[in-house]
Amino acid sequence: MKLYDGGRAPNPRRVRIFLAEKGVTVPLLPVDLNRMEHREPEYRAINPVGQVPALVLDDGTVLTETVAICRYMEELHPEPPLFGTDPLSRAIVEMWQRRIEFGLLATVAAVFRHGHPAMARMEVPQVPAWGEANRGRVADFLAILDRQLADRPFVCGDAFTIADISGLIGIDFMKPAKLSVPEDMANIRRWHAQVSARPSASA
Amino acid sequence: MKLYDGGRAPNPRRVRIFLAEKGVTVPLLPVDLNRMEHREPEYRAINPVGQVPALVLDDGTVLTETVAICRYMEELHPEPPLFGTDPLSRAIVEMWQRRIEFGLLATVAAVFRHGHPAMARMEVPQVPAWGEANRGRVADFLAILDRQLADRPFVCGDAFTIADISGLIGIDFMKPAKLSVPEDMANIRRWHAQVSARPSASA
Repeated sequence: MKLYDGGRAPNPRRVRIFLAEKGVTVPLLPVDLNRMEHREPEYRAINPVGQVPALVLDDGTVLTETVAICRYMEELHPEPPLFGTDPLSRAIVEMWQRRIEFGLLATVAAVFRHGHPAMARMEVPQVPAWGEANRGRVADFLAILDRQLADRPFVCGDAFTIADISGLIGIDFMKPAKLSVPEDMANIRRWHAQVSARPSASA
Repeated sequence: MKLYDGGRAPNPRRVRIFLAEKGVTVPLLPVDLNRMEHREPEYRAINPVGQVPALVLDDGTVLTETVAICRYMEELHPEPPLFGTDPLSRAIVEMWQRRIEFGLLATVAAVFRHGHPAMARMEVPQVPAWGEANRGRVADFLAILDRQLADRPFVCGDAFTIADISGLIGIDFMKPAKLSVPEDMANIRRWHAQVSARPSASA
């Protein structure tokens, strides 16, 4: 098994943190996003949609999409469970995972990709007005996330899950997008400090 | 159990088709999207992100996000399996499900929501340039989907899965977005006719 990795980009880091939480090591093959290696024919032969990460199994089967890779690793290494432990908790993890993906990761990505000059080669065409339109969406979702974190340690309750990993990645991705968590969102700030202090966060 | 439903909108229909494939009936509570009922405080008390569908369990627990609802119903009603049957097939279903969501559903939605005058009240602000930018992404993904369907009856192989439901919804959503599948994409056309002919498609 080997993992095509993309360094500082959010989705490769999501998978690396997930693996670190599982205590699993997979050999990494770096893909240089700055050199646009992920859009080259060599890499598209591995993943036709031209994105990292991609997990290559020993029989050559390629799994792409961050959450598909994580879900596969969850099945191979069930402990600690990061997708919930029964039908309802698994559904709630899926719900928050998706809320965070659509409400935070996608919106912050839009601000970054459509607003940052360094992304002009990768995001074609950049649509600055679309980046701007997403600022308010980020703020709206942060308010929902802050309320959710008011009376539980982690996004889905007492257990750390993949929704916390996605949330951590989303908040950290705000920095290159030049966004910040409002001072008065004490619940997000407390939770972010806590999940950032886990050893996995440096993966 | 009851399901807040949104009529012709893509995500409510995804859940209805999923339930029909399972042979499960859940009482529907209509939410009038044209009257913007999903953005009213009454509905936001059910789903703070203001989207349909939402499943309310008998104890009052609310599950939102289409795929979270489907995954919960899969656990309660495992047959026929629509998320795969073993670790690898489940990962492959997740992979294609997400490729279709990002490559087709989200891109077609962007063309529709940012380009159609009727959506001006719901998509604030509309960014026509962002709608236009997504036309090429739809075309790029259709080429990938057509290749995938060249040598298998369904998106993930021999079995109909939730990835086929999402794909059907995505292709059907192209019509109001005034997009169409190119004539030469015979694999998509064959598959679309086949999945559209299933009784569940009219759910």
